[in-house]
Amino acid sequence: MAKNITPRDKDYSEWYVDVVREAKLADYSPVKGCMVIRPNGYAIWEEIQHALDRMFKDTGHVNAYFPTLIPQSFLEKEAEHVKGFALECAVVTHSGLELHEDDHKLHLKGKLEEPLILRPTSETIIWAMYKNWIQSYRDLPLLINQWANIFRWEMRTRLFLRTAEFLWQEGHTAHATSQEADEEAMRMLHVYKTFAEDFMAMPVIHGEKSEGQRFPGAVRTYCIEAMMQDKKALQAGTSHFLGQNFAKAFDVTFQNEQNQLEYVWATSWGVSTRLVGALIMTHSDDDGVIVPPKLATWPVFAVPIYRKPEERSLVMAKMNSLIGDLKTQGIGVKLDDRDNVTPGFKFAEGELVGHPLRIELGPKDLEKNQVVVTKRHNREKVFLPLDRAAAEIVTILDSVQKDLFTRAKTRLETSTKEINSYDEFKEYIAADEGFALVHWAGNTEDERRVQEETKATHRVIPLEGTREKGKCMLTGKESAQRVVFSKAY
Amino acid sequence: MAKNITPRDKDYSEWYVDVVREAKLADYSPVKGCMVIRPNGYAIWEEIQHALDRMFKDTGHVNAYFPTLIPQSFLEKEAEHVKGFALECAVVTHSGLELHEDDHKLHLKGKLEEPLILRPTSETIIWAMYKNWIQSYRDLPLLINQWANIFRWEMRTRLFLRTAEFLWQEGHTAHATSQEADEEAMRMLHVYKTFAEDFMAMPVIHGEKSEGQRFPGAVRTYCIEAMMQDKKALQAGTSHFLGQNFAKAFDVTFQNEQNQLEYVWATSWGVSTRLVGALIMTHSDDDGVIVPPKLATWPVFAVPIYRKPEERSLVMAKMNSLIGDLKTQGIGVKLDDRDNVTPGFKFAEGELVGHPLRIELGPKDLEKNQVVVTKRHNREKVFLPLDRAAAEIVTILDSVQKDLFTRAKTRLETSTKEINSYDEFKEYIAADEGFALVHWAGNTEDERRVQEETKATHRVIPLEGTREKGKCMLTGKESAQRVVFSKAY
Repeated sequence: MAKNITPRDKDYSEWYVDVVREAKLADYSPVKGCMVIRPNGYAIWEEIQHALDRMFKDTGHVNAYFPTLIPQSFLEKEAEHVKGFALECAVVTHSGLELHEDDHKLHLKGKLEEPLILRPTSETIIWAMYKNWIQSYRDLPLLINQWANIFRWEMRTRLFLRTAEFLWQEGHTAHATSQEADEEAMRMLHVYKTFAEDFMAMPVIHGEKSEGQRFPGAVRTYCIEAMMQDKKALQAGTSHFLGQNFAKAFDVTFQNEQNQLEYVWATSWGVSTRLVGALIMTHSDDDGVIVPPKLATWPVFAVPIYRKPEERSLVMAKMNSLIGDLKTQGIGVKLDDRDNVTPGFKFAEGELVGHPLRIELGPKDLEKNQVVVTKRHNREKVFLPLDRAAAEIVTILDSVQKDLFTRAKTRLETSTKEINSYDEFKEYIAADEGFALVHWAGNTEDERRVQEETKATHRVIPLEGTREKGKCMLTGKESAQRVVFSKAY
Repeated sequence: MAKNITPRDKDYSEWYVDVVREAKLADYSPVKGCMVIRPNGYAIWEEIQHALDRMFKDTGHVNAYFPTLIPQSFLEKEAEHVKGFALECAVVTHSGLELHEDDHKLHLKGKLEEPLILRPTSETIIWAMYKNWIQSYRDLPLLINQWANIFRWEMRTRLFLRTAEFLWQEGHTAHATSQEADEEAMRMLHVYKTFAEDFMAMPVIHGEKSEGQRFPGAVRTYCIEAMMQDKKALQAGTSHFLGQNFAKAFDVTFQNEQNQLEYVWATSWGVSTRLVGALIMTHSDDDGVIVPPKLATWPVFAVPIYRKPEERSLVMAKMNSLIGDLKTQGIGVKLDDRDNVTPGFKFAEGELVGHPLRIELGPKDLEKNQVVVTKRHNREKVFLPLDRAAAEIVTILDSVQKDLFTRAKTRLETSTKEINSYDEFKEYIAADEGFALVHWAGNTEDERRVQEETKATHRVIPLEGTREKGKCMLTGKESAQRVVFSKAY
């Protein structure tokens, strides 16, 4: 266990903060509630962006960029939306500062006629533009995504998971029919699920949110929910069927094929830098971060071992040749050839930042014509013949990716339990045992009561799984299927 | 010439706006001074980002993300910096809005103790963080870049060139010695020059800015200056040697190898979405945009020609096979196989958005076993045998890239002239003939006078070219070399 990192079983929450800071993934900034994403953390976000952007483009989407500043009046146009975001938004009221000669201080100048809001999400500004861009069914569908920074003034912040500013992508699509829009919302939900499971090695439950957990302005909100190592849920992505709510708020109509004017149908969907936090909390351990191979900028961390200069040149020759072979196979390698630190120090540093594999090569390995490979996630050592090493490492990386998924999937499955009464539920949740599968037919008020009494919230109505009917654990009313309740981030 | 586009020789400025809007590169937004970058324009920016990011990483830089919101007091810490940016910055003063029951309107709430500025550039927040990250020479150099949005309240805006919000990258590096920092500033200047010339096909003059044109807080500002088709200059990128100014303002010291405390040396450097405007104004014509092949997402635009269904299937089979071959060669192809618009309509649309090459394939071409290739920039038609087409197209794209550069380079050279007296200068500038190479030894006040009298500004002290001495055209003082003056964007 790395020094300066609190063990998970001692204090999971402290462990998380320690890992993020010790591995230099992020840092608190002097601006209350805002974080700095440091190069090690940003590299993970870049890999996430890269993979997702490819998936968005493969499903026909293009990127664009809309203004950060949104007129206050835009927010007011959609009734639910304004309730959801007004209280916690950052407001620009002036267009400059002026240095006064008398007190040598800066004073506000240029008061704006209308305050501008830093986007808490971009539906309003985007639909104000769509009004100009959409006239006919020929202009539809409009499949646009934006990578951007977002502002929501949060009271209790946590690095990556909840900060006043964060980075995300937001898709905003416009369609001619309700069905097409709902299919799009569902398509993107599946893109998120595939990404979470195949790239992040993070199993998720996908489904629909309850009315109480719906995005302000949406008709239906779909989501993927993951389970962290402390058995709490983390909402990892959402996709919304917005109906015609924003089209009506911004008067966006189109002429359909029958020459009639109709309001446009909409979706929006997003994931954020929160995923970096989810990735850490899903896989990492008391020694630091564990990054799944598919999201590692440098899946392999190479440490040459030597004492004398003659050894150095022999070892480095073989090491460089192996690194060359790995690069040919498309595997990024981070070589640590510093002379002023010990191999042990390098090992600890490599474990801290989470390269999936470490390769070591020393004089004794050269004699045996082998390289030592250590898997970060389970410390397993493999000795590979040098001439086949590159090809084998590709296979090992693939198996590590699968291992990580299986490990997380097992946790999710063994920590998800069918619960049949509210008393049993309260006990289960208090013991932090995981996801509760319960029959539920309560309303938003009932959900609030459960949250107050247990701290657990309605997470998702799963789209897959059994559909057996039952009685709501709280109200006793008929329920069509079980849903997931859990404490959550 | 495309309808709805004002010809360049009639009104260059109108032509630019028309091209940007007709080709759907960008649009004005309802927020004063802010633009929307539409998918066609954003695709160019993505290609620019992709190429530059690769070059930054190849020179040892990593990406990170710092808060958008900067405490007002940070801006005050560097005297020149605050003078340069305070007047035009967007100021956040409140952390929320509240719906009042009485008037059903949103009202400001949560007044901040200290106003926060939307970053006009990030030196201050970044150096506040560097103070925590740098203790010893072992922590140096720190080579960090950020891709971000920037806010400067501009009075007179122009799409891509000058807007209240724009996108950019900003490198911020920290070094142990003055020499190393200056070398870094120079290295990045050369990265920008290489990028402008090799990718944008836009020749530039690289050199140093005069004191009057220096970045607020810099010791030296280097820049690349390009010439647009109307012979005006456009500053396309800057790289600053910041000395120890920001280290002193934020008290960032390090222990050197001799165990002494020293202030850290700094650079910063940036290019922005302004480059999209520069690209348009360098190459495009009265029919629309011309994108150089290396920055085109779809270098090839494919239009199948047919009337009858039998023709369609024959033509599409060959077309798809050719597209497959091109993709194998790494060439992106945009296929327009819509049945409800004419080929002529497609041609005009393809020309408007600027694909470097168009390929047409119809029944007559099939008979001759050929494909028709049309170069966007000079309308030249080439008939290629189908079996060799893919390989030849790769070569043609390469030659188009070179052609565009040569064409722009010729313009730059023929429109740059040595001018030897202020009278001659006034005449030359008034006639909009291009760059004036003049001897100059004036100060910032003198520069201001020239600007007031002629609208021309000091652009750059070239690093390359002859070093012959002379007399300043305005003051008659000794001058070590000629510098560039021009009207500019």
